[in-house]
Amino acid sequence: MTTLSGTGANPLRDAADRRLPRIAGPSGLVIFGVTGDLSRKKLMPAVYDLANRGLLPPGFSLVGFARREWHDEDFAQVVHDAVKQHARTPFREEVWQQLIQGMRFVQGDFDDDEAFENLKKTIAELDQEQGTGGNFAFYLSVPPKFFPKVVKQLKKHGLADQKDGSWRRAVIEKPFGHDLVSAMELNQVVHEVFPADAVFRIDHYLGKETVQNILALRFANTLFEPIWNRSYVDHVQITMAEDIGIGGRAGYYDGIGAARDVIQNHLLQLLALTAMEEPASFDADALAAEKTKVLGAVKLPKDLAKSTVRAQYTGAWQGGERVIGYLQEDGIDPKSKTDTFAAVKLEIDNRRWAGVPFYLRTGKRLGRRVTEIAVVFQRAPHSPFDRTATEELGQNALVIRVQPDEGVTMRFGSKVPGTSMEVRDVSMDFAYGESFTESSPEAYERLILDVLLGDSNLFPRLAEVELSWKILDPIEEFWDRHGKPAQYPAGTWGPAEADEMLARDGRSWRRP
Amino acid sequence: MTTLSGTGANPLRDAADRRLPRIAGPSGLVIFGVTGDLSRKKLMPAVYDLANRGLLPPGFSLVGFARREWHDEDFAQVVHDAVKQHARTPFREEVWQQLIQGMRFVQGDFDDDEAFENLKKTIAELDQEQGTGGNFAFYLSVPPKFFPKVVKQLKKHGLADQKDGSWRRAVIEKPFGHDLVSAMELNQVVHEVFPADAVFRIDHYLGKETVQNILALRFANTLFEPIWNRSYVDHVQITMAEDIGIGGRAGYYDGIGAARDVIQNHLLQLLALTAMEEPASFDADALAAEKTKVLGAVKLPKDLAKSTVRAQYTGAWQGGERVIGYLQEDGIDPKSKTDTFAAVKLEIDNRRWAGVPFYLRTGKRLGRRVTEIAVVFQRAPHSPFDRTATEELGQNALVIRVQPDEGVTMRFGSKVPGTSMEVRDVSMDFAYGESFTESSPEAYERLILDVLLGDSNLFPRLAEVELSWKILDPIEEFWDRHGKPAQYPAGTWGPAEADEMLARDGRSWRRP
Repeated sequence: MTTLSGTGANPLRDAADRRLPRIAGPSGLVIFGVTGDLSRKKLMPAVYDLANRGLLPPGFSLVGFARREWHDEDFAQVVHDAVKQHARTPFREEVWQQLIQGMRFVQGDFDDDEAFENLKKTIAELDQEQGTGGNFAFYLSVPPKFFPKVVKQLKKHGLADQKDGSWRRAVIEKPFGHDLVSAMELNQVVHEVFPADAVFRIDHYLGKETVQNILALRFANTLFEPIWNRSYVDHVQITMAEDIGIGGRAGYYDGIGAARDVIQNHLLQLLALTAMEEPASFDADALAAEKTKVLGAVKLPKDLAKSTVRAQYTGAWQGGERVIGYLQEDGIDPKSKTDTFAAVKLEIDNRRWAGVPFYLRTGKRLGRRVTEIAVVFQRAPHSPFDRTATEELGQNALVIRVQPDEGVTMRFGSKVPGTSMEVRDVSMDFAYGESFTESSPEAYERLILDVLLGDSNLFPRLAEVELSWKILDPIEEFWDRHGKPAQYPAGTWGPAEADEMLARDGRSWRRP
Repeated sequence: MTTLSGTGANPLRDAADRRLPRIAGPSGLVIFGVTGDLSRKKLMPAVYDLANRGLLPPGFSLVGFARREWHDEDFAQVVHDAVKQHARTPFREEVWQQLIQGMRFVQGDFDDDEAFENLKKTIAELDQEQGTGGNFAFYLSVPPKFFPKVVKQLKKHGLADQKDGSWRRAVIEKPFGHDLVSAMELNQVVHEVFPADAVFRIDHYLGKETVQNILALRFANTLFEPIWNRSYVDHVQITMAEDIGIGGRAGYYDGIGAARDVIQNHLLQLLALTAMEEPASFDADALAAEKTKVLGAVKLPKDLAKSTVRAQYTGAWQGGERVIGYLQEDGIDPKSKTDTFAAVKLEIDNRRWAGVPFYLRTGKRLGRRVTEIAVVFQRAPHSPFDRTATEELGQNALVIRVQPDEGVTMRFGSKVPGTSMEVRDVSMDFAYGESFTESSPEAYERLILDVLLGDSNLFPRLAEVELSWKILDPIEEFWDRHGKPAQYPAGTWGPAEADEMLARDGRSWRRP
């Protein structure tokens, strides 16, 4: 393995060749909140998988920071168990032995100046012992209320200072605030410590292969772009459905709800990638410019009562099991108005999309776990066939399946075999898993590597976060002022009100 | 089963509902050349399958005419054996017993006036006994040189006369002449006896489900038509490849060749369906008008030496078997210049297709048996991705697989899983066999039913046949005047000259 420079460039490779693996230069990752679920299930396995794929430098270092009374060995053991349980690639002892060399644990809480001094010392030692070159990313895998404290401590102890061509970066998990004002406050705090290009907001959906593939599909091909506009598209449906309830996350979820938790980030990012104009290049600035432009063109319908729905799941039988309603969940206020289902109709006020509704929905305790983008096309403007020949024909659709069963489905009409002319819907399918021998990296793998490489293509920028809150805030305010959430039995596809919302437009939700 | 009127209409059904089975009214079929291969392998089984599917009237009659000294029972036995061997649907004794009631054999040769009088008497008897109502189709499954004689005999003995609302129709198999002049002569003879709407020229390719599906794909959907033109299509390839040689057909094939045998009819009809404008309706006149229009717009490139190739197969190992070359086949003149492979480049001089080449090729003893239409799209005019990211990306293509494995494949670029952005070709597939439980009728089933119903949608009209000869004649004349056919070893995909023809345009043939 070669040690590479900080930008990931290698003098022996053609740096512009995107087919070659992008390998991180000398660097380390500090995780705050390292004892949490996200860290064990996603971050630690992702670091191992990256190392196993040869995408990390040999001296790569991983520092855990938490209150737990651990030594380096305890931490290493926790990482070991997490990797064994959750990593995607096979466990190889030699990779593990190399990785463990750079593993450190720093004990303390976020008020503890001594702990941050220890962290500083640890980093300096790693620079010496592991050759990390002063390049560290700080991953804030902690509740948002601690963000200001942690970044202020990083500043106070000089941990955010980039010197001599080395870099320091901050990685923040959603939620990025709970409305526009709080998001702007949070950003102000962060940007007092880190420059804009050193802040990486993780929306792990953007790390998914199928999400990145939206851009490849649209812009590397000739087939789709000519019909990707108001002349041919009838409407777009973006769905993220979960079959699980809130689990043990009552404390986080109540008061936040489905719209803030999913629509504000994941679904509006999917909308932006689906609807944006073609960027001049695939670099981060060009991409962000187009996403910002299209998010800025999103318009709420006038009558929010008719174009938004929020709801809560109620107790029901789901998959052979009796599950309780949201208001009966542990730790939830029985009078809570928090939405566990949210559906909104948005419009995009530009030449490409004027008049084409984008329907977004998300919810917990729905029929099954699925995320998809369905571009539904208008019917052919004229049919040479008899009306009855096409009676059973639906609308053409292109469905990008984000998860599970990643792939693309195209629905169109085909002649039914037989001696008469009858046309019926069929589908064509492309499955990621069947088409490529390459295994898909986990979203966090991709995103952590991008942080280490300083590649911000797949990270929403401040402007995008703020625009997304601008879209959501009036809806949340409307919901606060008007009535109560609707209800839907656990295991169904949401409340009747959501179906009525589309029925008013002469449309219906897909049952994915 | 209800007895239906001659138009196939049933007062109890909505005649306009194309989803309902179209059932033939009282009628019968007379086959000339009933001892031939086509008759036994295709026509007899098709009649049985139609009866078995309930699409023939109960009194349907089948009359064989040939020189063989058979009685009705001998004929019935031959039909029985042919059905058992070649029918698609299961043998059911009750269907057979009903069918056999209307089976008759008339012995004689084409000069034999008495035989034609017997035929006339037989038909009159069937009208009495079977209720065929005077409606008979005459299927000329005989070498083209006998066409004039047979139709003249039909006229002489009053067999072509349509009286009292009954109908008489003639069915002619290709070749419809061997050039424009002979085709016009043949048509003149036929039209002296039968009016234009009573003449059905069979191009069995048009009876294939996938061929009819070209129209459903193009015009019942929104997806394809917007990109079906010179702005997006780079070129079109239409291929009909056979892996077999000429078999026992030396007498027919030598002097005719691949271009006359396949391009003049099948491939130019596929070109017409692929390239034509949308008809106002799916009725036969509207369809023929569009096909005629587009065939009339076909233009030959100026330099026929560079835009046409003919060749003969030479002896080689094919599929583990040593096969002989064309010139060594039994009954072939060792100095024959007949083409067993032909490839031509055509252009279509209209607003939709100007500048888009249509490459047609056909041949015997090629790599495998396959017929397909490939619409190959231009590359995206701009790519936001690095050049290297799309280096392995081909052109988007939509491939209509006519046979075998009927279906549609779409090739496009998708992101390769991994932490870099690389785009590679994948395909989406729709297979007729997997998508429908309905079984596809054999092409001859569909076409015989259409003849009995008087539905001429799927039959090329005189004008189309003449236009096709107008396209082919200059090529054949050029070949006659210049040099000798190229050569290709049996089992390959044709001569190097065909590859060079496309290479000059910066393109290459698909290897289907």
